[in-house]
Amino acid sequence: MDLRPRDHNWETRVRDSFSAQNFMAFIGARLVHLAPGGVDLELDLGPDLTQQHGYFHAGATSSIADSAAGYAALTLFPPEAGVLTSEYKINLLNPADQPVLLARGRVIKPGRTLTIARSDVYGLDDGTQVHVATGLFTLMSVSGVKD
Amino acid sequence: MDLRPRDHNWETRVRDSFSAQNFMAFIGARLVHLAPGGVDLELDLGPDLTQQHGYFHAGATSSIADSAAGYAALTLFPPEAGVLTSEYKINLLNPADQPVLLARGRVIKPGRTLTIARSDVYGLDDGTQVHVATGLFTLMSVSGVKD
Amino acid sequence: MDLRPRDHNWETRVRDSFSAQNFMAFIGARLVHLAPGGVDLELDLGPDLTQQHGYFHAGATSSIADSAAGYAALTLFPPEAGVLTSEYKINLLNPADQPVLLARGRVIKPGRTLTIARSDVYGLDDGTQVHVATGLFTLMSVSGVKD
Amino acid sequence: MDLRPRDHNWETRVRDSFSAQNFMAFIGARLVHLAPGGVDLELDLGPDLTQQHGYFHAGATSSIADSAAGYAALTLFPPEAGVLTSEYKINLLNPADQPVLLARGRVIKPGRTLTIARSDVYGLDDGTQVHVATGLFTLMSVSGVKD
Repeated sequence: MDLRPRDHNWETRVRDSFSAQNFMAFIGARLVHLAPGGVDLELDLGPDLTQQHGYFHAGATSSIADSAAGYAALTLFPPEAGVLTSEYKINLLNPADQPVLLARGRVIKPGRTLTIARSDVYGLDDGTQVHVATGLFTLMSVSGVKD
Repeated sequence: MDLRPRDHNWETRVRDSFSAQNFMAFIGARLVHLAPGGVDLELDLGPDLTQQHGYFHAGATSSIADSAAGYAALTLFPPEAGVLTSEYKINLLNPADQPVLLARGRVIKPGRTLTIARSDVYGLDDGTQVHVATGLFTLMSVSGVKD
Repeated sequence: MDLRPRDHNWETRVRDSFSAQNFMAFIGARLVHLAPGGVDLELDLGPDLTQQHGYFHAGATSSIADSAAGYAALTLFPPEAGVLTSEYKINLLNPADQPVLLARGRVIKPGRTLTIARSDVYGLDDGTQVHVATGLFTLMSVSGVKD
Repeated sequence: MDLRPRDHNWETRVRDSFSAQNFMAFIGARLVHLAPGGVDLELDLGPDLTQQHGYFHAGATSSIADSAAGYAALTLFPPEAGVLTSEYKINLLNPADQPVLLARGRVIKPGRTLTIARSDVYGLDDGTQVHVATGLFTLMSVSGVKD
């Protein structure tokens, strides 16, 4: 699997695009790791992000899983191409009420048009790590869309 | 398909649970339709909910799709059972930059343990309706969890 | 949604391609309905197609769901493009032990590169119809591949 | 993750159940590895299993992916419980025209009612290995069903 970036400016491009995702700032997600084919995001549990039982809402969990997968794909795109999520599937494995969620997006299969990535979400609590969710994402490379 | 509620208090229960989903209030989602096996939610486009190109973030779209599916399932649950999303898959069909998103959650197959629902999300703009996303959701009935 | 074929020869092309899918002949699937954006396949229950409890194996159910979705997409492709399944998700709703399975593939969103289709599988038994499975499929148009 | 079998007879039970899956024998699948939480199946490319371009039909690929995941789950079930696939999602990563397909089913999250497993399918050809497909599966434990 070839994980060499095709844009020498890939790191700045991903950071700038992440900064421009208002929804990520709104929910409080942080970009904590960035490498060719791999992006990690973190999110703190807070009262705004919960469902009715006090756990992270599946929507919050999925949102960082999706952005981690999308940016993992974008690290490998050529300069003139933007990224869109075409589809994804996620399994919610354990209730997520840990103080921090970590989403690890990793490219499984890079491609010219479609890139497939996995995202695993872990709940971090005082040295322990719980597998909260796992998902598969299809990301599309869209020419002429600035990212 | 039997869509008769097993809890005579189903409507109040769903409304109360939706009100307790802080994440729905945080992103601004509204419960606009409620029937046995069917729940509709709406969400206004605002600067907080966008991805880097100004469209609704897939996470926001998925969040209301998920809650609509989950509450569609909950309308059919017995009094002592709560609802958790086990897994879902969503296809993002068109860019979503309309002023309002409408998620229609509909039960496909009710069940004692697992309920399967579909959620379709539409972008509403001045009388037109664009099919923004479609998803399949597996909802789990969890005994002894208040909802 | 525009469901006009872009190949005046679409019907012959789909029938010829279906005939060339050896696996469909091997399991005994029949093409029973063909229209722009919609294809139905049928399959008889027989001892070769079962899992350990005597029901249709999920693999058999999925196989006709996949081919129905793929050919529903192909009806809309231009002459020089072939079809490949990129991914799918399927929910198995009820045990399938009816004499005949019917898979209805329907295009939800046609596209130049990606076409999204739904496939619903029903078990037919003496006038009754059971919803056996529902799935979402992403089909890819591949230029220069004969179909 | 606890991968200890709850049935001391798990190995015989899985082998017997696999032998009773007629569809696996029909397509020629072999059980080549068996461990608690992990099952590998192999399938030879032959003229009966192809789609219209001569590759393995996605239905054949998915069928062994599904059975590998299902039996990986069954290795961990108590004696009186059978396994049913509730749903799955699969991404087809590369065309599969290698002489042998290998499906590796691995439990990600065991559970009393639902078990989540991953299945990765590889095409094997003269020492090389191509990643053909990856999928996520939800398996259900059904009490009182012989397996």
